[in-house]
Amino acid sequence: MTLALDSAAQDLLFREARTANTFTGEPVTDEQVQAIHDLVKYGPTAFNQQPLRVVLVRTPEGRERLVRHMAEGNKAKTSTAPLVAILAADNEFHEELPAQFPVFPQAKDVIFAERPVREKSAALNAALQAGYFIIGVRAAGLAAGPMTGFDADGIEKEFFADGEHSVLAVVNIGRPGADSWAPRNPRLTYDEVVTTV
Amino acid sequence: MTLALDSAAQDLLFREARTANTFTGEPVTDEQVQAIHDLVKYGPTAFNQQPLRVVLVRTPEGRERLVRHMAEGNKAKTSTAPLVAILAADNEFHEELPAQFPVFPQAKDVIFAERPVREKSAALNAALQAGYFIIGVRAAGLAAGPMTGFDADGIEKEFFADGEHSVLAVVNIGRPGADSWAPRNPRLTYDEVVTTV
Repeated sequence: MTLALDSAAQDLLFREARTANTFTGEPVTDEQVQAIHDLVKYGPTAFNQQPLRVVLVRTPEGRERLVRHMAEGNKAKTSTAPLVAILAADNEFHEELPAQFPVFPQAKDVIFAERPVREKSAALNAALQAGYFIIGVRAAGLAAGPMTGFDADGIEKEFFADGEHSVLAVVNIGRPGADSWAPRNPRLTYDEVVTTV
Repeated sequence: MTLALDSAAQDLLFREARTANTFTGEPVTDEQVQAIHDLVKYGPTAFNQQPLRVVLVRTPEGRERLVRHMAEGNKAKTSTAPLVAILAADNEFHEELPAQFPVFPQAKDVIFAERPVREKSAALNAALQAGYFIIGVRAAGLAAGPMTGFDADGIEKEFFADGEHSVLAVVNIGRPGADSWAPRNPRLTYDEVVTTV
């Protein structure tokens, strides 16, 4: 075995895990989301920045406000998933750096003074964190259904009125229901992805 | 236990894993990188796009060409890590979509005809894949040292002469050496990251 990770964990996180499109009615609790956060918060980022923000949509009103901005093909599943999470990047993450990266508290002003620099850094690092979050949902034994088909401006105006957040993905979360996925699509081979110099 | 993932796997991937800054001399083999790819290739992305490209820097000449573009504080570790991987997004990933997402082969032309649309999608999805890759390095029992401190234009000109790639991160890979990391920096709490509507 070339990998140190045991095969049950490989299956749970990658090999047998699939993007779910239907869900059972079993609720996803705050305790489960807390456990996911408590695991994936350790994922590495640049300067220990943590721009990812998660909005859990739990009320019928919140669900309606969200579904309105989803692409037509995503409305039904976003309406019925036990839990829906909006993942966004906080472009003002640099305010936290003196506390989160105390070895170089000047980073806030020296590196991240300009908004375009912050946006680019937040887009990359919040996306890394979104990847860790999806792995964390699977680590909780749940299925994730990440989506990017939505009106991003609409969601940002609706849920992030401060104008300082960029939505990355909306993720349905729960136990997979009937016919939750189609057969797996192909993946690029090693030789298509990896070159050596 | 709220998580389904066993605690040894939690430790290996998140809780005890750390960003390494020094390494032992033990080589990282192509077989290990193949095993990492074979695991993390299943990570979910939008339209099953797979924009992440990995350049393994194995020759002394390649190492020199890379280190030249690294920030001063990253030069020593990038010079001495057993293996260095350049992670980049291929902004022409849409050419592969008819094969990789056969249920909607028109995506290539209908959705991704415009370069700015492709760049934005590749930046997000390649970063998700970079997150999976870092988890995969840890799944192989290795330490990752991801870095964003480099001259991106310089690396892109040096290693991606086609002008169609955007570098995301450079990752040192190996077994952690002496004094490989400082104590962990703080993480945002659940209440700082998660809100509910």
